[in-house]
Amino acid sequence: MAKEQFVAQIADIEKDFPQWYTDVVLKTRLVDYGPVKGTMVIRPYGYAVWELIQKHLDGMFKAEGVENAYFPLLIPMSFLSKEAEHVEGFAPEVAVVTHAGGEKLAEPLVVRPTSETIIGNMYSKWVQSYRDLPVLINQWCNVMRWEKTTRPFLRTSEFLWQEGHTVHASAEEAEEETQKMLNVYKTFAEECLAIPVITGRKTEKEKFAGAVATYGMEAMMKDGKSLQAGTSHYLGQNFAKAFDIQFLDKDGAHKYAYTTSWGVSTRLIGAIIMTHGDARGLVFPPKVAPVQAVIVPIAAKKGGVNEACAALEEKLKKADIRVQTDYSENSPGWKFNEWEMKGVPVRIEIGPRDLAEGKVMLFRRDTLEKREAALDSAAETVASLLGEIQKDMLEAARKRRDERIVYADSMSGLLAGVETGNFVKAGWCGDRACEDKVKEETAASARVYAEGESAQTCVCCGKKAKHMIIFARAY
Amino acid sequence: MAKEQFVAQIADIEKDFPQWYTDVVLKTRLVDYGPVKGTMVIRPYGYAVWELIQKHLDGMFKAEGVENAYFPLLIPMSFLSKEAEHVEGFAPEVAVVTHAGGEKLAEPLVVRPTSETIIGNMYSKWVQSYRDLPVLINQWCNVMRWEKTTRPFLRTSEFLWQEGHTVHASAEEAEEETQKMLNVYKTFAEECLAIPVITGRKTEKEKFAGAVATYGMEAMMKDGKSLQAGTSHYLGQNFAKAFDIQFLDKDGAHKYAYTTSWGVSTRLIGAIIMTHGDARGLVFPPKVAPVQAVIVPIAAKKGGVNEACAALEEKLKKADIRVQTDYSENSPGWKFNEWEMKGVPVRIEIGPRDLAEGKVMLFRRDTLEKREAALDSAAETVASLLGEIQKDMLEAARKRRDERIVYADSMSGLLAGVETGNFVKAGWCGDRACEDKVKEETAASARVYAEGESAQTCVCCGKKAKHMIIFARAY
Repeated sequence: MAKEQFVAQIADIEKDFPQWYTDVVLKTRLVDYGPVKGTMVIRPYGYAVWELIQKHLDGMFKAEGVENAYFPLLIPMSFLSKEAEHVEGFAPEVAVVTHAGGEKLAEPLVVRPTSETIIGNMYSKWVQSYRDLPVLINQWCNVMRWEKTTRPFLRTSEFLWQEGHTVHASAEEAEEETQKMLNVYKTFAEECLAIPVITGRKTEKEKFAGAVATYGMEAMMKDGKSLQAGTSHYLGQNFAKAFDIQFLDKDGAHKYAYTTSWGVSTRLIGAIIMTHGDARGLVFPPKVAPVQAVIVPIAAKKGGVNEACAALEEKLKKADIRVQTDYSENSPGWKFNEWEMKGVPVRIEIGPRDLAEGKVMLFRRDTLEKREAALDSAAETVASLLGEIQKDMLEAARKRRDERIVYADSMSGLLAGVETGNFVKAGWCGDRACEDKVKEETAASARVYAEGESAQTCVCCGKKAKHMIIFARAY
Repeated sequence: MAKEQFVAQIADIEKDFPQWYTDVVLKTRLVDYGPVKGTMVIRPYGYAVWELIQKHLDGMFKAEGVENAYFPLLIPMSFLSKEAEHVEGFAPEVAVVTHAGGEKLAEPLVVRPTSETIIGNMYSKWVQSYRDLPVLINQWCNVMRWEKTTRPFLRTSEFLWQEGHTVHASAEEAEEETQKMLNVYKTFAEECLAIPVITGRKTEKEKFAGAVATYGMEAMMKDGKSLQAGTSHYLGQNFAKAFDIQFLDKDGAHKYAYTTSWGVSTRLIGAIIMTHGDARGLVFPPKVAPVQAVIVPIAAKKGGVNEACAALEEKLKKADIRVQTDYSENSPGWKFNEWEMKGVPVRIEIGPRDLAEGKVMLFRRDTLEKREAALDSAAETVASLLGEIQKDMLEAARKRRDERIVYADSMSGLLAGVETGNFVKAGWCGDRACEDKVKEETAASARVYAEGESAQTCVCCGKKAKHMIIFARAY
């Protein structure tokens, strides 16, 4: 009874996915709306996920030789204008500081939407010789892009992210870095978030404003829409020329450097929710679950139950498992529902009968399966179960996604494909007009080039196809 | 010879402390000036210090039950005005966003100078019942205060910090939290930064705009000036009333809650530099040293030296020591100077003769002492030496400071005391007029009440003293 009432608080995931998402993020206290339209407050349960994402990714960056730094929030408006495409792309959505310290500023300052310009300005000072290269710097910070339509984690005027900015002596080296970091993201998404991703180059229309080439990683959400979960840009000499990043090379000549940038954001939290969530709420992959296991005492007033829970909690903590015991006055059923909604990977139930038999009951949030385990070795069992869940969640997500990638050779096929929640592979002639028309008629955009695949004809105009594209509706 | 040339790049610490500071922070690449006046770029070597500060402090906060969250950067101007003292204190130094997304905003938004108001707004929504209390939340973020005179780390228009914001059911509990977090800061400053601090209550003039009481921790820099290194505020019901943070108490009555806030910032990096630095440059306490030990190969071309360095580096890494080996082409003398300037606590020299004798040479940055150690057990020796340095640096700083706390019972005595680089204890009648006059005539401000001490007469007016105050010139 309690269960139905509780679950009823969340909209039906099959019938109204957007409302399900909103219900889940608010009711599990991941996030709340800020007082200014389009802003979010990341609450402790949500921020804990971001901290885990940071910890894992930051370690991967450092293993690649990347160091962290911090650059100023406010960028002179004139910096944006130095790279023509960049200003065109970002000027319409910046927030502008016009007054400070009680006075009108001589030059308006932009709240960073991304930091290529201000970092380029510093790099031009720091990079003098080939000995100074490569520069491999990342920053974790807030950025702001004024958006008309917003949703927590997916699109908000302010969000948290990391942005890596590197400088290299040659195009080859910069291109290699672009790919390397794209692969770091892919590894991270799959191994830590259990989200299978498709990586590939973006079309001219979809690329970053100012890049030579943008590579994206796209993940399929449970409604079949795509979420761009990270991007890596090869910037060529565009920003080096705009900001005069030159170095004295070994051959004695002054040369413009080659730069890259790459980023992922709190959007990844949205990707986790929409990849793994189900009718009961959140389902966290263990590696980024704020709580990996919750212990629920059953009939706790009977002798020894709470003590056994506390002892097991200690053991799990020693095994580096993020665990907590729910000693609250709520009924076991209520607790089950709450922790299921909050997406905790493993629930451990301990009651008087279990104790007497030296057992515990384990519940897997991802598959909803129950099994018994010996109390004595419960910590080891839970540790190995968490590893299993992490692996199984990736495979389950991969299977779901692979079943929903279809091929279309006509506009009606493409439309039907995306309308029924698929990624659609289709040929493209390479003309922007066809790309625009696909968007207009099907609401699907070109997500990435399908690497290593070719097509006969353009899905739109029927002319010879130059590329195979993965089209999808997207967040 | 090389040594003198190298060191000559830094101004004489005895003759020109401010220039010494500027030279050291720039030349060691801790920081650089940003393109907008008053802003700084925290470079990788400086940011690594901040990461270590964050790691230690964050662990201490979590041990006290504090969770992290993230609140929006932009605050509606009207929020500031809800607390009368708060707006008076902060309005003159805010940066204001007036335009966003290509349009003029209906209400200007302030870039947060501190977040009591926007967090108070959210807490009024989250706190409903005594069951929701206490709320213990912290955020790590950037803040902005438009300053006329700026110096890297010490005073910049944007800086990084953490701000804790807690809500409690009673005044006693909130006051206790205020003291608890002040003590966390004190423990952290002394144990991690090796900076002895004096904690105490601030005068009305010096307190946080909107607080009932502000407690500060003050550290003596090498020039005898004080640096406010952290503050903890008891806010009473001021913000609870301004933002309607009410809860239904056990007795069925609706009551206003009591709040606190507390923060430390990247200013702590300035405190480290000016507490421990010397004529050769930086001196890092091991716990926050980005590099704790540097290995310098001597006559590296001779057989086995580089290999021995690499093997030792591995051993040190396994012992969780942050170590690096300088294989560059520079001369040993040049390397010694560079790593001394960069403040690395321990230098390990390995040459062919050392190798033959199974020894290494260890150099302590803090005392400039050299000693031999067995190569075989070098990792253990270095680990224990780092612990020793950490402890000795605190004691040395404490001794220096304690020798420079004097007592004065006249304005001329007070002036002479601060002019010769001391903290001066003196009686105060409690009148703002006397506090202002001391500032005007000696450039010293009341840092904190000297706890548990009393004085006979006011140093300024000669009337009966109500308090003993620690006066100092301050950053």
